[in-house]
Amino acid sequence: MPPPDSERPVDFPPTEKTRIKRLHQRAHYDRESAYAVLDSGVLCHVGYVIDGQPYVTPTAYWREGDKVYWHGSSASRMLRRVKEGVPVCFTVAMLDGLVLARSGFHHSVNYRSLMAFGQAEAVEDEAEKIRSLDVFIERLTPGRAAEIRPATSQEIKATTLLRMKLDEVAVKIRNGPPVDDEEDYALDVWAGVVPVRTVIGAPQDDPRLKPGLAEPGYLREIRINALDGD
Amino acid sequence: MPPPDSERPVDFPPTEKTRIKRLHQRAHYDRESAYAVLDSGVLCHVGYVIDGQPYVTPTAYWREGDKVYWHGSSASRMLRRVKEGVPVCFTVAMLDGLVLARSGFHHSVNYRSLMAFGQAEAVEDEAEKIRSLDVFIERLTPGRAAEIRPATSQEIKATTLLRMKLDEVAVKIRNGPPVDDEEDYALDVWAGVVPVRTVIGAPQDDPRLKPGLAEPGYLREIRINALDGD
Repeated sequence: MPPPDSERPVDFPPTEKTRIKRLHQRAHYDRESAYAVLDSGVLCHVGYVIDGQPYVTPTAYWREGDKVYWHGSSASRMLRRVKEGVPVCFTVAMLDGLVLARSGFHHSVNYRSLMAFGQAEAVEDEAEKIRSLDVFIERLTPGRAAEIRPATSQEIKATTLLRMKLDEVAVKIRNGPPVDDEEDYALDVWAGVVPVRTVIGAPQDDPRLKPGLAEPGYLREIRINALDGD
Repeated sequence: MPPPDSERPVDFPPTEKTRIKRLHQRAHYDRESAYAVLDSGVLCHVGYVIDGQPYVTPTAYWREGDKVYWHGSSASRMLRRVKEGVPVCFTVAMLDGLVLARSGFHHSVNYRSLMAFGQAEAVEDEAEKIRSLDVFIERLTPGRAAEIRPATSQEIKATTLLRMKLDEVAVKIRNGPPVDDEEDYALDVWAGVVPVRTVIGAPQDDPRLKPGLAEPGYLREIRINALDGD
């Protein structure tokens, strides 16, 4: 868990786009907080613009060092557009709880979120693409990259891989109980937090699974959106 | 559960923005599918543009009839911008599972997602704002709107409430097992789906909860991101 606000370093100096003006106690600009959010989540939302129209595309991502990666079919509109180097907003958000206060106004949610602004670039080198896609697989299922059938050149060509350096980044986190108006604490209203968690279910064999194949141990170790201490 | 593809009506005729060109078997343009996704989720991502720069802001939303609503502080950059009537992309996405195939190329995720394009408008009438914010509270915790301290005019003024009509909408869903290349089914590689689910934890009393207040029954009935059949 990152130390409290005042002790935390500023690794991503806030800009006009990333400075959180309201509720600034929820803002974090340090690498540790950013990586903690990124390494917990799986799904990001990539924002980009075509002819003045915003698009927000959900997709899986992963982090390596100071870069985030995402990928998909070379035919994807999002990937074709974003690889041109247009401005991107990369957002990750996880709902951690419902915050039930004594007034509607102070109802809230607990969450972790990250916004990163920048331009993505395509990774074109075949060996580097293979290596990075293996990182993606190894991230949640370590050991699996060596078990599966290796990628063909044709598959790598059909896959667009994008990466974006983390430069302009804001992390916003809310946790803890509701904060009510002082006089409302006397009301006869239940208040507190209803936790929202992501859990991983029992693996479901492919109906065409080859008989006699054991379930790999890593399937029971997967954690997604996990909070420290979970 | 909506009927299979060919039997489903088209309530939102696909446009240049919403037509899903690849993997079109995952696309749905009917109201039932759209409402099922919307009524299951809590967190949306709102995309908008300022000076050519895309922003993607996560926020809670709710649906009423053929409109989605979201809200927040009147000082919020997102709300101030979006209420001007600029083009918006409203996206909801839920991760339902990891799809582990026998090749990296066919690895995938199961998910439900919705993208809606349009312009939002601010709800200005105080009574209508109160009514709609109550719908939001009642949605997850039915009965609570009448228990909490009523909103003040000042609070309602400080809250911007936006709504957007669902006109240009695409739903994209993947479920089921991996789909591998035919020759790969013979490989000695475990394949299948690892389910990802959202669960609601045991409510946590506010540390300042007034003694003797019972936990409301609705707290144990909350469901978020639930799939049909869960």
